[in-house]
Amino acid sequence: MTSIRIPAAADFHVHLRDGTMMETVVPTIRQGGASLAYVMPNLVPPISSVQQALDYHSRLQALDPSVTFLMTLYLSPEITPEVIAEAAATGKIAGVKSYPKGVTTNSDAGVVDYASFYPVFAAMEEHDLVLNLHGECPSNSTTSLLNDAETFQPATSSTTTILNAEESFLPTLLDLHSRFPKLRIVLEHCTTAAAIAAVKQCGPTVAATITAHHLYLTIDNVAGNPHCFCKPVAKLPSDRAALMAAATSGDPKFFLGTDSAPHPKNKKIGTANAAAGVFTQPYAVSYIATAFDRVGKMDAVRAFVAEFGRAFYKTVEKGWESAEDVTKDAIELKKEPGVKVVDEFGQGEGVVVPFMAGETVWSVTWL
Amino acid sequence: MTSIRIPAAADFHVHLRDGTMMETVVPTIRQGGASLAYVMPNLVPPISSVQQALDYHSRLQALDPSVTFLMTLYLSPEITPEVIAEAAATGKIAGVKSYPKGVTTNSDAGVVDYASFYPVFAAMEEHDLVLNLHGECPSNSTTSLLNDAETFQPATSSTTTILNAEESFLPTLLDLHSRFPKLRIVLEHCTTAAAIAAVKQCGPTVAATITAHHLYLTIDNVAGNPHCFCKPVAKLPSDRAALMAAATSGDPKFFLGTDSAPHPKNKKIGTANAAAGVFTQPYAVSYIATAFDRVGKMDAVRAFVAEFGRAFYKTVEKGWESAEDVTKDAIELKKEPGVKVVDEFGQGEGVVVPFMAGETVWSVTWL
Repeated sequence: MTSIRIPAAADFHVHLRDGTMMETVVPTIRQGGASLAYVMPNLVPPISSVQQALDYHSRLQALDPSVTFLMTLYLSPEITPEVIAEAAATGKIAGVKSYPKGVTTNSDAGVVDYASFYPVFAAMEEHDLVLNLHGECPSNSTTSLLNDAETFQPATSSTTTILNAEESFLPTLLDLHSRFPKLRIVLEHCTTAAAIAAVKQCGPTVAATITAHHLYLTIDNVAGNPHCFCKPVAKLPSDRAALMAAATSGDPKFFLGTDSAPHPKNKKIGTANAAAGVFTQPYAVSYIATAFDRVGKMDAVRAFVAEFGRAFYKTVEKGWESAEDVTKDAIELKKEPGVKVVDEFGQGEGVVVPFMAGETVWSVTWL
Repeated sequence: MTSIRIPAAADFHVHLRDGTMMETVVPTIRQGGASLAYVMPNLVPPISSVQQALDYHSRLQALDPSVTFLMTLYLSPEITPEVIAEAAATGKIAGVKSYPKGVTTNSDAGVVDYASFYPVFAAMEEHDLVLNLHGECPSNSTTSLLNDAETFQPATSSTTTILNAEESFLPTLLDLHSRFPKLRIVLEHCTTAAAIAAVKQCGPTVAATITAHHLYLTIDNVAGNPHCFCKPVAKLPSDRAALMAAATSGDPKFFLGTDSAPHPKNKKIGTANAAAGVFTQPYAVSYIATAFDRVGKMDAVRAFVAEFGRAFYKTVEKGWESAEDVTKDAIELKKEPGVKVVDEFGQGEGVVVPFMAGETVWSVTWL
């Protein structure tokens, strides 16, 4: 297959930032083939009130009214059962994102103890909001070697590293699912075969997003290339193969969430402490099509990028008759001519480098 | 213990480069506390003849006559049993370095098949030259994701990554040791508990170097910080603990080889494909003392940095009566006042950033 027409994609995990970076990134959502963006709340300060979310929604819509923006709240002490009820009533906020404290960009306000949020989870179950989990246990390492209490301590089997942080989190996923079986949970940006297995083992209320870049990367690519550094980090070839198998399997538990995370170029490669994140928004569906094509699974693209996510989130977009009505917007993907990934987006301090700059991938055309 | 006087260190694995970088790095050998440097041959082109090694030796001596430079040859088809005999006769070439093809900086001319070098190893055994092994199997990854034949292939247990590349090499070490039991072999820059165990399991002709930076780093530090990226990469906290235990154990099989590997700053950060190497030369003994002090093992510093390596290499330095005579040059290490690692060495395009820039470590004073 060298071309295919499918409904516009829905990207169920995006970082759109704010200010100048937001102005650079939002126009690339449709360029990447998506008409819906599920927006992460890790701004500074985090989006922890309904009003903040609605204001952010307005700023985003103003930049591209043709995109459906679904908002999230940042799980933190400000989020109460009352806030959940209020959020659900807006129809614009579809979930709450949980960041374990300190694991990734702007997660300082993140979760230390889940038990304190059980009443919130119960309210989310009642109001049918989705819980989005960044599924990693905080690592023990710090950026200052001499100030790192762990550096010269004997390691224990419980020592958390970037390699086992996701697998170490999986018991928490299973525990939350068993306590709140009706709560819809998404394990975000899976990177390991273990995570795929855990999600499959759960009931239908638990799903997972898979990014584009994790279908390409392993830890070998991360070492020495900050553009390929994100949290969770890419793992082993066997893990990458498990992600590809899940994404192309036709199992509705697995759908697209790019975790596109733009950072200024000088925060990625001009520094000894690179920001974690890979920018994939402008070519989101192109990367997926190119990867699926390599394994002869182009027929799985439609469901992975356009159908399974919308079905799980029960999203009804503007002018659509139902969540299943994914016919209003359509895109065509072509292998030839492909599109060459540009070197940079934005200007000056706001320049951001896309994943696989310079490589040629499948093209996306709006119909 | 807050201060200690010990013989000058001998650094049995250094990269001194050539030209401008050589001029920047050589003066930092004594600054780092060492009076002997065992010089790696991976220049461009590699040092693969006795004359090249002697010429390189002259260039190094001209920059600092007070340092003893021990030279190595680059294991390649140019290295014949005759070359080994010629090298041994010079008294200035102590070993031959083996780089598996493609694993690290300037290793394109490296080894694909060891069997073809058995006659060379036999000659080295006869002339008592040391075989220095970069102990990693080549990784399967490439820098171009779409051109990487492995990217979309199912992973197999034999898939080599930066994480298992060293452990995968250990059977080769054991095989070479069994074939050439009298050949002195050094497994360079160990990074795993498995490598330490393999070296211990071998006879007294097999030893290992341990770097300063691998006593501090884990894979968590490598991800996102090109200054901490080297080959082999730092592994898990349990591996780091095993290195520290071996380095401080008093086992003469384990001694200092910093693998100090300077790269221009613009080849480390500011690029999407960072050069592999950590620059530790100017503070070599300072890093070791600071790490050993943290685990209460200052009494192990002397043997690790000054005695075990010289004994294994049977080195007799200028004006010394024997390999055991390590009293001619001496240094004093002090916790207070320590020394703050500077931000950069060199100028312009040749600027190189030292490990742990900005941190304060034990100071080194020549007596």
